[in-house]
Amino acid sequence: MKTSKLLSLAVAGAFLASCGNGNNSNGNKSGAMGASDAASRVYVAPGEYDEYYAFLSGGFSGQLATYGLPSGRLLKVIPVFSQDPEKGYGYNEETKPLLQTTHGFIPWDDTHHPDLSQTNGEVDGRWIFINANNTPRVARISLKTFETEETLELPNAAGNHSSTFVTQNTEYIVGGTRFSVPIPQEDVSIKDYKGKFKGVISFVKINPDSGAMNLEFQILMPGFNYDLAHSGKGNSHGWVFFTTYNTEEANTLLEVEASQNDYDYIAAVNWKVAEDYIKQGKFTEMKAPHYHNTYSDETHTGKSEVVETVKILDASQLPGLVYLLPTPKSPHGVDVDPTGEYIIGNGKLSSDLTVHSFSKMLKAIENKAFDGEKYGIPTIKMDAVVAGVVKSTGLGPLHTEFDDKGNAYTTFFISSEVIKWKVGTWEVLDRKPTYYAPGHLMIPGGDSRKPFGKYLVAMNKITKDRFLPTGPELCQSAQLFDISGDKMELLLDFPTIGEPHYAQAIPASKIKDQQTKIYPLKDNHHPYVTRTDADAKVVRDGNNVHVYMTCIRSHFSPDNIEGIKVGDTVYFHVTNVEQDWDIPHGFGVLGAQNAELLIMPGQTETLVWKPTKVGVWPFYCTDFCSALHQEMQGYVRVSAANANTPLKWSLGGDEE
Amino acid sequence: MKTSKLLSLAVAGAFLASCGNGNNSNGNKSGAMGASDAASRVYVAPGEYDEYYAFLSGGFSGQLATYGLPSGRLLKVIPVFSQDPEKGYGYNEETKPLLQTTHGFIPWDDTHHPDLSQTNGEVDGRWIFINANNTPRVARISLKTFETEETLELPNAAGNHSSTFVTQNTEYIVGGTRFSVPIPQEDVSIKDYKGKFKGVISFVKINPDSGAMNLEFQILMPGFNYDLAHSGKGNSHGWVFFTTYNTEEANTLLEVEASQNDYDYIAAVNWKVAEDYIKQGKFTEMKAPHYHNTYSDETHTGKSEVVETVKILDASQLPGLVYLLPTPKSPHGVDVDPTGEYIIGNGKLSSDLTVHSFSKMLKAIENKAFDGEKYGIPTIKMDAVVAGVVKSTGLGPLHTEFDDKGNAYTTFFISSEVIKWKVGTWEVLDRKPTYYAPGHLMIPGGDSRKPFGKYLVAMNKITKDRFLPTGPELCQSAQLFDISGDKMELLLDFPTIGEPHYAQAIPASKIKDQQTKIYPLKDNHHPYVTRTDADAKVVRDGNNVHVYMTCIRSHFSPDNIEGIKVGDTVYFHVTNVEQDWDIPHGFGVLGAQNAELLIMPGQTETLVWKPTKVGVWPFYCTDFCSALHQEMQGYVRVSAANANTPLKWSLGGDEE
Repeated sequence: MKTSKLLSLAVAGAFLASCGNGNNSNGNKSGAMGASDAASRVYVAPGEYDEYYAFLSGGFSGQLATYGLPSGRLLKVIPVFSQDPEKGYGYNEETKPLLQTTHGFIPWDDTHHPDLSQTNGEVDGRWIFINANNTPRVARISLKTFETEETLELPNAAGNHSSTFVTQNTEYIVGGTRFSVPIPQEDVSIKDYKGKFKGVISFVKINPDSGAMNLEFQILMPGFNYDLAHSGKGNSHGWVFFTTYNTEEANTLLEVEASQNDYDYIAAVNWKVAEDYIKQGKFTEMKAPHYHNTYSDETHTGKSEVVETVKILDASQLPGLVYLLPTPKSPHGVDVDPTGEYIIGNGKLSSDLTVHSFSKMLKAIENKAFDGEKYGIPTIKMDAVVAGVVKSTGLGPLHTEFDDKGNAYTTFFISSEVIKWKVGTWEVLDRKPTYYAPGHLMIPGGDSRKPFGKYLVAMNKITKDRFLPTGPELCQSAQLFDISGDKMELLLDFPTIGEPHYAQAIPASKIKDQQTKIYPLKDNHHPYVTRTDADAKVVRDGNNVHVYMTCIRSHFSPDNIEGIKVGDTVYFHVTNVEQDWDIPHGFGVLGAQNAELLIMPGQTETLVWKPTKVGVWPFYCTDFCSALHQEMQGYVRVSAANANTPLKWSLGGDEE
Repeated sequence: MKTSKLLSLAVAGAFLASCGNGNNSNGNKSGAMGASDAASRVYVAPGEYDEYYAFLSGGFSGQLATYGLPSGRLLKVIPVFSQDPEKGYGYNEETKPLLQTTHGFIPWDDTHHPDLSQTNGEVDGRWIFINANNTPRVARISLKTFETEETLELPNAAGNHSSTFVTQNTEYIVGGTRFSVPIPQEDVSIKDYKGKFKGVISFVKINPDSGAMNLEFQILMPGFNYDLAHSGKGNSHGWVFFTTYNTEEANTLLEVEASQNDYDYIAAVNWKVAEDYIKQGKFTEMKAPHYHNTYSDETHTGKSEVVETVKILDASQLPGLVYLLPTPKSPHGVDVDPTGEYIIGNGKLSSDLTVHSFSKMLKAIENKAFDGEKYGIPTIKMDAVVAGVVKSTGLGPLHTEFDDKGNAYTTFFISSEVIKWKVGTWEVLDRKPTYYAPGHLMIPGGDSRKPFGKYLVAMNKITKDRFLPTGPELCQSAQLFDISGDKMELLLDFPTIGEPHYAQAIPASKIKDQQTKIYPLKDNHHPYVTRTDADAKVVRDGNNVHVYMTCIRSHFSPDNIEGIKVGDTVYFHVTNVEQDWDIPHGFGVLGAQNAELLIMPGQTETLVWKPTKVGVWPFYCTDFCSALHQEMQGYVRVSAANANTPLKWSLGGDEE
């Protein structure tokens, strides 16, 4: 216990010293430029557009938030792995399947690392992917609709943290286990961890046309914690690099026990070799049921399917598949520079960055410059792979991104700063404080072959006195820097939804004009679509009642329904028959346990209601849609279970 | 049907003509001032504070969002009537009771009208109230913790729209039914609406010390729709004014049927008279079970209680309680000027505003200047009560607020503009376009006796081309105007969470320094609190297992747990024993159906987990808390239901 507390205090103390220890210091603008100049550089005048779309993960919120840069304005929270009452996601019948797992329906998860699809190593604006950390999954979001189209469970993984980093042509997204577990799961003592618990790295194949995801194979790895990843590019295309920690394989009090070794490893995984092994049949087909959930814009419905098995490649048995690069000290982020030559290990308990050289690594492998192995995986000699060390004098380096001028930028969590350094010379060029405790940072395209080196966003875990206080729970925040000049200039603090864990950004011009504005009603193939008021109807099927309903400014058809009984399950299938841009309608019914819908033009959504009380209950449009929005309402009459009220309904005022 | 469609098209057409019909016009800055001047006026430099807290209702999101003004930055979404995966609200056991109703657990509702508590007609920064529209409820939020402390169901109401407007000393908040229904509810034909369906207006008494809410009485009203409300002030203190529509008492196709009359009414309710009637016993005690839910900062737990009855006053039987003021044309908002003399009816199907005089109303009542009655309630002659008409030439007036210089500002939904006019002369002074279709507007203190007339926020239902597009679903938005000069100046567009329905704002100086920063651990009386690592334990009680857990940078105690079985219900009661500002911890366990917790310093929260699979499952901190956050993890071993694995756990590394 003593060791643990000392270490905690040391780390906490270092942090507190750097962040003002809670003093309401307010107005600390070290690193900020002249206010009026900064103001004009972040101001986006009414009606004008931001220059970049930025996608910040929501961390523990489980979502992905879209911001405009440089304004920092929140444009849309895209629901992914959590329910969202703003949008009905995870409440309506159509999107519930996206949250289905082998552990049941999971209403809330923890997203960390979004990654934009790439073509030839450049962001291409087709999709963005993101991971679920808690119940391991990955998701694909369309950048035409800004909706989640697919979620995929990753079996055998536990804590899908080092995910979803894409390869250079979006051949794959990856997922590395953060917590090793028995594979397959079994009832063993936690003390048997060492040797018995294993990690897996998942390679999820992306269909180049549709974006459809498939768990192509998993690589069985030593029982380390796999923390972050990034893919090779250029010459290093074909490899993915994963940081590891807890190579001590401790199972308790990790804050002490997993910080004993002077170095852990970056695992270099050659997925082209993996593909060869798969072709050669050198895999085990393992029973590992996992959910593959999809949402179709054509049927406007989600679907859950279970995939039964996964192909396993055993890294300890398959030469050339994985190498381990020794890296001080509990490396957190691993980042590959735009050329693909340098692999930066951010040793979080160090002040230095260790930079590996890809070409040295290849040579070391060729020359077998190994100094041992871990569970059959060769460990490369440190001298044989390290290209240089960045002597930062910062504390707690976590992540590095790159600009288009050969510079790198690294966040330091404990000393709360961003440090700019030169790739190749390892020289520190600039440093600016951040407020406080930055985790990731993001430069648009900053993990691709073509960074857009104008802005840098530092994502801070702690804000304390930076914004007006809001009780014990404060926002986390992002800080926008201008990096177009020699020195970084702090422009703006903006609060974020949840934890701004990692982020991606893309020039608005690349995706602005591909946006879907409405769903064509003629292409709506929802099984319960109702295309015109005249087609509206109510159909009883035993205790299930299906209401085929339309809505348009400013009425529902039908708007009077009778003959519903306590004990029924009522399915309101509501089609928004508007075909105008930005004219959604809502639907709410008093006492509905799933409450509400929010339906885009041309879309059908379904609300399930189990009425519990006899009476006449109103429903109404919940999204202010027209000058007669308040009149957009109706009633459902609910009779006792044994009543004989006949089923009837109105159609635009004419009772059937 | 034809009438309906024609009217729809007319309304839609007028709107579309005004909003560019979807052209990506981008850069339309009519009404905007010079960009660099505006930029400097809305820019809040890093580390500096906004001048106002603004609270914008989330509309269909069911929440209340806190923004800073003038920056438009979103500081915190306060969850109220919907679950919130960012915060665990409605997922952890402690807050679930707040969403309990007689219709069951409702995970998502529709909030409309926040109102700040007032003392002597001025905002006092103690609480903010807000309504649930769908399943009728009101809520109280503490402005020390920014947490929802209380929710109260309103029986007999249906669509609690004209709510929560406070009286001058926060004696009451009110709630008027939007949809009339049978009272008490019964199984009747919807066609029997006229005469059979009734409205109620609820008066919720506020305890002046604790803020505790109690449904003091309800007033039985004619079967109209009660749309908006505002309280009297100064001389008119003691009265609350409600707009009505559908005084036609139609039950279908309301867009046509409820727009037939040339005027509807503003119902003037004298709650001091109501109090006298209550004292005199002239009420009916009606069986009307409704939930009263509270959350205590002392026990850190929520509690649901059912109140069985409510006192009913029948407006048709009790003279002097209610008067009806005829008001053209389907009036939507009703707003009382800072002096309390003028009551503005915003007739949404008109271009004029009808202004009633409170003193004329009193005189008319004294002189019995009535021209009839509705269900026993006197209707005052229009001439006897109207003080003036604002001839705006705008279309679709919805809401009016006031500055501190005798001016009023009204939103026009259809013509998309804000019009400034002079109270008393009714002269139009200025008009500025808004983008697009504003509903409410808000001036800090603008519905109190002391407005702060510097900023005006117009809340727009439709944005179309105003921001970078995000698929079919676009944000709604707020527009900030400077109203300190003669002419309004548009400063900023900022997107909002959900529908920014109505809003309140208060100078930051009034509440900034009263904020709770941590919950003192010594005052935590949660039934399952664990104050030190040494007190951590696991207790089995049949199939229920209670884990008494602590968390602190950077470990959980216990961090290894064995002896859990499939079929158990595991309660993780996690206490964050940190006593530092802004050091929350999260807690997630793989596959937990309620997924996660987010625990503030000194707080205890409970996650329920029903493990379904044998194996060893990790848990971890979901909120990046320290340099060793990634090491803050543990494992739970789950055995088969019939296994005899003994219950044991670690304490900071030392196995029990």
